[in-house]
Amino acid sequence: MTPQGTSLIGQQAVIGDQAVIRAIDPASGEVLAPEYPGLDRDAVARACQLAEVAYATYRESSLDDRAAFLEDIAAEIEAIGDDLIERAMAETGLPRARLEGERGRTCGQLRLFASVVRAGEWLDVRIDPALPERAPMPRVDLRQRHIALGPVAVFGASNFPLAFSVAGGDTASALAAGCPVVVKAHSAHPGTSELVGRAVQAAVAKCGLPEGVFSLLFGSGNEIGQALVADPRIQAVGFTGSRRGGQALMATAQARPQPIPVYAEMSSINPVFLLPAALQARGKEIAEGFVASLNMGAGQFCTNPGLVLGVKGEALDAFLAAAGEAVAASAAQTMLTPGIHGAYEDGVGALAGHAKVREVARGQVGEGPHQCQAGLFAASAADFLTDDALQAEVFGASALVIECADGAEMQRVAESLEGQLTATLQMDDGDLDTARALLPTLELKAGRVLTNGWPTGVEVCHAMVHGGPYPATADSRTTSVGSAAIQRFLRPVCYQNLPAGLLPEALQDGNPLGVSRLVDGQRKN
Amino acid sequence: MTPQGTSLIGQQAVIGDQAVIRAIDPASGEVLAPEYPGLDRDAVARACQLAEVAYATYRESSLDDRAAFLEDIAAEIEAIGDDLIERAMAETGLPRARLEGERGRTCGQLRLFASVVRAGEWLDVRIDPALPERAPMPRVDLRQRHIALGPVAVFGASNFPLAFSVAGGDTASALAAGCPVVVKAHSAHPGTSELVGRAVQAAVAKCGLPEGVFSLLFGSGNEIGQALVADPRIQAVGFTGSRRGGQALMATAQARPQPIPVYAEMSSINPVFLLPAALQARGKEIAEGFVASLNMGAGQFCTNPGLVLGVKGEALDAFLAAAGEAVAASAAQTMLTPGIHGAYEDGVGALAGHAKVREVARGQVGEGPHQCQAGLFAASAADFLTDDALQAEVFGASALVIECADGAEMQRVAESLEGQLTATLQMDDGDLDTARALLPTLELKAGRVLTNGWPTGVEVCHAMVHGGPYPATADSRTTSVGSAAIQRFLRPVCYQNLPAGLLPEALQDGNPLGVSRLVDGQRKN
Repeated sequence: MTPQGTSLIGQQAVIGDQAVIRAIDPASGEVLAPEYPGLDRDAVARACQLAEVAYATYRESSLDDRAAFLEDIAAEIEAIGDDLIERAMAETGLPRARLEGERGRTCGQLRLFASVVRAGEWLDVRIDPALPERAPMPRVDLRQRHIALGPVAVFGASNFPLAFSVAGGDTASALAAGCPVVVKAHSAHPGTSELVGRAVQAAVAKCGLPEGVFSLLFGSGNEIGQALVADPRIQAVGFTGSRRGGQALMATAQARPQPIPVYAEMSSINPVFLLPAALQARGKEIAEGFVASLNMGAGQFCTNPGLVLGVKGEALDAFLAAAGEAVAASAAQTMLTPGIHGAYEDGVGALAGHAKVREVARGQVGEGPHQCQAGLFAASAADFLTDDALQAEVFGASALVIECADGAEMQRVAESLEGQLTATLQMDDGDLDTARALLPTLELKAGRVLTNGWPTGVEVCHAMVHGGPYPATADSRTTSVGSAAIQRFLRPVCYQNLPAGLLPEALQDGNPLGVSRLVDGQRKN
Repeated sequence: MTPQGTSLIGQQAVIGDQAVIRAIDPASGEVLAPEYPGLDRDAVARACQLAEVAYATYRESSLDDRAAFLEDIAAEIEAIGDDLIERAMAETGLPRARLEGERGRTCGQLRLFASVVRAGEWLDVRIDPALPERAPMPRVDLRQRHIALGPVAVFGASNFPLAFSVAGGDTASALAAGCPVVVKAHSAHPGTSELVGRAVQAAVAKCGLPEGVFSLLFGSGNEIGQALVADPRIQAVGFTGSRRGGQALMATAQARPQPIPVYAEMSSINPVFLLPAALQARGKEIAEGFVASLNMGAGQFCTNPGLVLGVKGEALDAFLAAAGEAVAASAAQTMLTPGIHGAYEDGVGALAGHAKVREVARGQVGEGPHQCQAGLFAASAADFLTDDALQAEVFGASALVIECADGAEMQRVAESLEGQLTATLQMDDGDLDTARALLPTLELKAGRVLTNGWPTGVEVCHAMVHGGPYPATADSRTTSVGSAAIQRFLRPVCYQNLPAGLLPEALQDGNPLGVSRLVDGQRKN
């Protein structure tokens, strides 16, 4: 399967006539064919119009039909075979094993959402039966279910060309909720996007769904994306990317005559707390685990551990020495795009040139273009607390170790942090009291708190929260990974005193869908 | 118990030194003692600071302690006795029976949330146990619960001086979630607000909770309210009132360095669809039910039926005649405030003077000040579809009947509507197909769809949705009435691989709280 350079509007393949996007192989700097001419605003409106038409029936598709569609998308993606992996390798510089794993995750995620759709927990069915004898006033029959919000705009991320892109978590969860999806493709991997988009398009046709259930739009610059979020038919937005990009979409969504929710996952430095007993007992081992997490995927993860905190002393010095050694031995890795590499160089350069920051180690210098030379830096907690610039995310393999005078200062640093996706404790039994004292702060700062592991590697499951307080995300009440992600694209509707013949199936007597229900406040399976 | 003219900041009674609020008896125009001098911004900051301090422990109060606190608030409100009813009557012009009923609803609501807290569904506990043998990668233990968002600002509404005010639904659901509450009192019923505020304050003391769990602020104008929403410690806002007021708070909340959610319930005209068979069979009976709903509480309900749609013809003419007769016989009723009465007069005047609107009937002229003379108007669907002004809410007993050429035009009017709190179908068996065709449109326009009843009278239960698409509310994903209202003030946190000694009680093995859990995606009670 070879990419053709087209956008996909419903079942049509469309070649735009605006400024052209060209994929670049970051490992060589080579420009990859084909070109992707951008669409104009009219094309955006056409995709949204088709999505609105599709919404009318797709939102009421049966649980089985919708689940089968998600499974079909997974099968169609797998059916592309090695063409997809090779194209993604060329466009991202990511190694084969990583991309094969990511494809597995993407398809697994689609199949998880198929099971979520079938289980029907997301309907959140609540039934309060009529109480005709209640005094002073009888109660009428009241039933609640959740319905799909409407067409959703999804912005693919650069760093997960499969799992957070065209058929990634946002798309899978929106489709699971019953929302048609219009994807704005990320310009960094257009061929990969098109191949996956064609797989979704094929699944739509195979399942006999209305074509507007899925469209994929290419456009250079921000115009198409802004037009998409501003389109009155779009009812929610999923985005993974930079803080500036997310904030721009939030502003557009709020300025609409009808504001809509934006689920933007934006930035995080994912603090790691080295508690004293653990640091003392296994500082070297922790250092090695840390550098492995730091270097994973050239550090291009939103959960990359960019900040490490420890109490000054011999144990922390030993950690720094071991981590520095590991960083110094790190091979250079190709970054995703020339732009990301340039921003990384700027970020690392700013740290290296900062008067209050000490360079601990740099990784090996790369031989190819756009390679990331890992960086490890250190600063005092006192300086960190007085200089917001030290909290800025450097996207890539770069971390800052903060040397705290004592546990109290470590606590103050924790309290000074912006909202994060994750917070990690490296701890042993002897650290339990310290950890217990930190935990209330950490759970207010992050969506996920973990111990004795590393934040990279986000499990796709029911309990996952890939979210967190602003500015980690635009909406701390939600997650963009895991089955609860479906809740972002739903709203409740109450049906009062409806005749049986009008009730949606989920709410009918006898529970024909077999879903869990809250009846008079009591959970019934 | 006599009101003292004070704000309540934690356990302190504070007399402000800014512009004064004076209660007015709308039935007589008489100014009621005491005066309520407004607070300044420093006082707002003090209340928020206390709320933040209280949040640290209150958010982790045990389910039983928190439930007992909500029950204590109800008991303290009841203990005020008739002083509360008499003060509320004087400040609002509402009759005794209504206010006694509203007190019952308010206390019932607090007790409902006590039972909701104890049941623990709101924790949304999810556990994905470790799978150490899983290939290619083991899964670590992941557990999710919901925690309180933080201090919440609540704006009391004028039209429910008890049930949507100081200890109303927003306050009860935020406290249930574990959020301290800072209430900005509505200036229309300051004495009632203070009495209820003192009841909450007493319950805080009795339960040994930190004083910042509750504060009540008075201030004339918008300055105090805007300062409250802008305060960095406030993490969410509950508001019931005008569209302009809600939009102003939304703008302030979005402009903060950290934007926060605003749950504003703003405006709705609550369309009622008279389907042909029902209209034919029982038009007169429907007309009487409609006018009773229209006049309830002088029409000062957000669910007041302000728009009626029927197909032109003899049956609709008969309905109009019967409804007109009932409106003409309607006694005048005192409105809540001079300002609300003035706005009602302006709104009704605009309809009466509109070239495309015909006056069907007006109610009896009042003898006292600030009385609402009910209004019934009619216009064609064609005119309604081309003039947005006809969709404007007139707060009070005023309704517009839209005469549609046929069912298709009725459908087009339904599609043209803004977001609503409710949509009502008056239907008989013969209308089932028509109703089935309309329902998909109505559930996209409203939070609650009801048949053969009236939208006024909002049941406080588990299945209720008092919400709806913008501009009915700021956030269609939520409800401000019923047990699901608690979800507005929560966010999920995931705990990965935590040692047993660190796990929050809700997530511990053995389920010590006895709450419903989703284990590996399966519901376990």
